[in-house]
Amino acid sequence: MPIITAEGPKIDDLEKRKEFVKTVTAAASKYFNLPEESIIILIKENSPENVSVGGILISEKDTKNND
Amino acid sequence: MPIITAEGPKIDDLEKRKEFVKTVTAAASKYFNLPEESIIILIKENSPENVSVGGILISEKDTKNND
Amino acid sequence: MPIITAEGPKIDDLEKRKEFVKTVTAAASKYFNLPEESIIILIKENSPENVSVGGILISEKDTKNND
Amino acid sequence: MPIITAEGPKIDDLEKRKEFVKTVTAAASKYFNLPEESIIILIKENSPENVSVGGILISEKDTKNND
Amino acid sequence: MPIITAEGPKIDDLEKRKEFVKTVTAAASKYFNLPEESIIILIKENSPENVSVGGILISEKDTKNND
Amino acid sequence: MPIITAEGPKIDDLEKRKEFVKTVTAAASKYFNLPEESIIILIKENSPENVSVGGILISEKDTKNND
Repeated sequence: MPIITAEGPKIDDLEKRKEFVKTVTAAASKYFNLPEESIIILIKENSPENVSVGGILISEKDTKNND
Repeated sequence: MPIITAEGPKIDDLEKRKEFVKTVTAAASKYFNLPEESIIILIKENSPENVSVGGILISEKDTKNND
Repeated sequence: MPIITAEGPKIDDLEKRKEFVKTVTAAASKYFNLPEESIIILIKENSPENVSVGGILISEKDTKNND
Repeated sequence: MPIITAEGPKIDDLEKRKEFVKTVTAAASKYFNLPEESIIILIKENSPENVSVGGILISEKDTKNND
Repeated sequence: MPIITAEGPKIDDLEKRKEFVKTVTAAASKYFNLPEESIIILIKENSPENVSVGGILISEKDTKNND
Repeated sequence: MPIITAEGPKIDDLEKRKEFVKTVTAAASKYFNLPEESIIILIKENSPENVSVGGILISEKDTKNND
């Protein structure tokens, strides 16, 4: 503990992910005043047809934007 | 924010999902007294072999029901 | 199961909450094609100093709006 | 309700999973003083490239250990 | 990691909680084949007016049972 | 969306929290390639008697360390 969960779209760029977890781990270690080794990050990938904003699935918004 | 997370079995019917997020978004907007545009819904699909009720995996219950 | 978790600000109006859980339960029952009795809703209250949008705590936004 | 969510690596052994949910359900029933039938367990599988400990993705740790 | 989250009613009995986390940690260690030291458990207390089952707040069910 | 949830001990320092959400929001915006305005962070405070590591409540570990 502490545990950070990041819910967002799927990001394939492994280098960006390495940088993201490194930055967030350092920020969490500083905030919680706990060693970096105790910081866990879970990255949760969500597909656009399983997320809605304002009552509309993101997959629907994407389709409308491409029409 | 607000954020509604719906954990349940996988449902493939896109039209039903569109209706579900529309109804829940309207209900959440009314309850939290916040604009629909601020309401996020995450739909999380769970396979039956990863969920238990009463100590038995749902996939096991299904198998017993089909015997 | 299914389980719906609603993360949002604290709402004290019990009648509104009863209506909210009733509407969302009916929508979830219809979507997941499962009996209402199986639908669980967890309401999670978040105080404005523990939520940020766009990198700013909601409590800070409120303060700025009242200046 | 109650609901137990187990976030961890993917485990394919179905017999071990049956035993796990059985043990945890009994422990939860005893702790919450509620019938086993009311205990729900969700098992969430995380791939090593989506989890970090100490700022390093578990997939990276595995690679270093195998060099 | 792994991380177990237990959502349920508030239980004040500290001895029961110690036993609960011990049992669940041992079960998780065995299931995930990881050392007990790596198992984290978060216990989340929910008040009955913030949980609904079957569209009815648990606090309402309690009231009806006591009439 | 995206949504970052930070589970950890209660931290009272508001300035540290402002800095934390600012840093994590910038990192998430860069990682997900989405505007900062779309990044939501929920900070969840856990008391030591509701968290266990290695099967022991953190409140118990603290007591042992102070003996």
